[in-house]
Amino acid sequence: MDTEQIKERVGSRAVDDYVTSGMKIGLGTGSTAVWAVRRLGELLAKGALKDILAVPTSSQTIMECQDLGIPLRSVNDPEVSGELDLTIDGADEVDSSLFCTKGGGGALLIEKIVAYSSKRFIIVIDENKIVSNLGLKFPVPVEVVREARVPATKAMEHLGARVEVRMALKKMGPVITDNGNIILDIRFDGPIDPMEMEQELNHIPGVVENGLFTRIKPIVLVGTTSGKVQRYTSDEIPKSE
Amino acid sequence: MDTEQIKERVGSRAVDDYVTSGMKIGLGTGSTAVWAVRRLGELLAKGALKDILAVPTSSQTIMECQDLGIPLRSVNDPEVSGELDLTIDGADEVDSSLFCTKGGGGALLIEKIVAYSSKRFIIVIDENKIVSNLGLKFPVPVEVVREARVPATKAMEHLGARVEVRMALKKMGPVITDNGNIILDIRFDGPIDPMEMEQELNHIPGVVENGLFTRIKPIVLVGTTSGKVQRYTSDEIPKSE
Repeated sequence: MDTEQIKERVGSRAVDDYVTSGMKIGLGTGSTAVWAVRRLGELLAKGALKDILAVPTSSQTIMECQDLGIPLRSVNDPEVSGELDLTIDGADEVDSSLFCTKGGGGALLIEKIVAYSSKRFIIVIDENKIVSNLGLKFPVPVEVVREARVPATKAMEHLGARVEVRMALKKMGPVITDNGNIILDIRFDGPIDPMEMEQELNHIPGVVENGLFTRIKPIVLVGTTSGKVQRYTSDEIPKSE
Repeated sequence: MDTEQIKERVGSRAVDDYVTSGMKIGLGTGSTAVWAVRRLGELLAKGALKDILAVPTSSQTIMECQDLGIPLRSVNDPEVSGELDLTIDGADEVDSSLFCTKGGGGALLIEKIVAYSSKRFIIVIDENKIVSNLGLKFPVPVEVVREARVPATKAMEHLGARVEVRMALKKMGPVITDNGNIILDIRFDGPIDPMEMEQELNHIPGVVENGLFTRIKPIVLVGTTSGKVQRYTSDEIPKSE
């Protein structure tokens, strides 16, 4: 199976295994999560699922849901009231504690609001996303208000990070998020403590949110080249490999 | 002396005592800080101060500085590069550890970016702002992205706070900050640990920043009805009254 087929398989599988009629669901952003969105649209169109309310995590997901006729709500709407049954989303890296980094697609802020409002958090990835330590290969994205660019960069360097402003490709200047902020992509030269770093980064003035997700324990579905989907929960994986 | 005279006296005094030519200065927001801005404008116009670069903390301060001809910079400009000599700002409440709450004027986000980028942080207040415990009388303002209103409210209630969306008076709906977010004003029924609460609030997804300032030790100038200005630094005040 090629990567796109693996992504389709694992994204669809999350919907098949975890979504039932009547649920309130957070829908993630990215090239794997989009397959969950598509599968959901398919099952709703067939009538195999009913009465689903979906909370999207980005403008990408909103457009996809609108095209597929999936009913959208805000996490603030009274029918949702800040509590979702589950969220399905991708990740950029997942470690052996099932901590992960997200935000390669620039949607980390709303993704975290939605994930942390969910009873269950299902992560769908291919096996390339599994790492021993977060933040060494794939950067940790940090959403920052534009006015804090330089002082926030200095504060992150003080935490041992190398910092780059994420630049846009189809416009001049930096990537601007759905929320009007910039993204600083930060890399570390050695292992970090993800729980501590998530907290330290959020404590820097001007940091809106960062892409480390450690405060919710996900169920992780991993698509493999053989076509099988493996399932990990925090009980099943030892803390260190 | 009436309150306005006290504010003028203490705001001006901060400039007279701490500002020298060539400094890079953060300028706060509010009814006391504005007197520091005006005094600075006066001394620049007279030629008693020269080569000042000012970083404003709000649209209010920007307008005031523009009217007075005070040269403005961003904290990101190369001449400033994220490091200020000092910042002068007001506060809503100051406790005996010199922790304070700010953001009654809605400018807490940029105020914190600027204050935490400063070598010295001068707070100018009248004596009514001194309290035993923060957050009991005057609320702690928390700047939140609009999409997180309900889940962030629930998370703060979980921390023991009563939460109100700050509503606007000269427009319909909520106050929108200079950064496009809303403000949740939160109150506590008993004493909080300000250092811990500052951190906990920033850890809630969707919280951009909160009005507790505990990570920088200010010099506090207090204007009194007798016309005298008292000066407090963290060494001079015992931890509990």
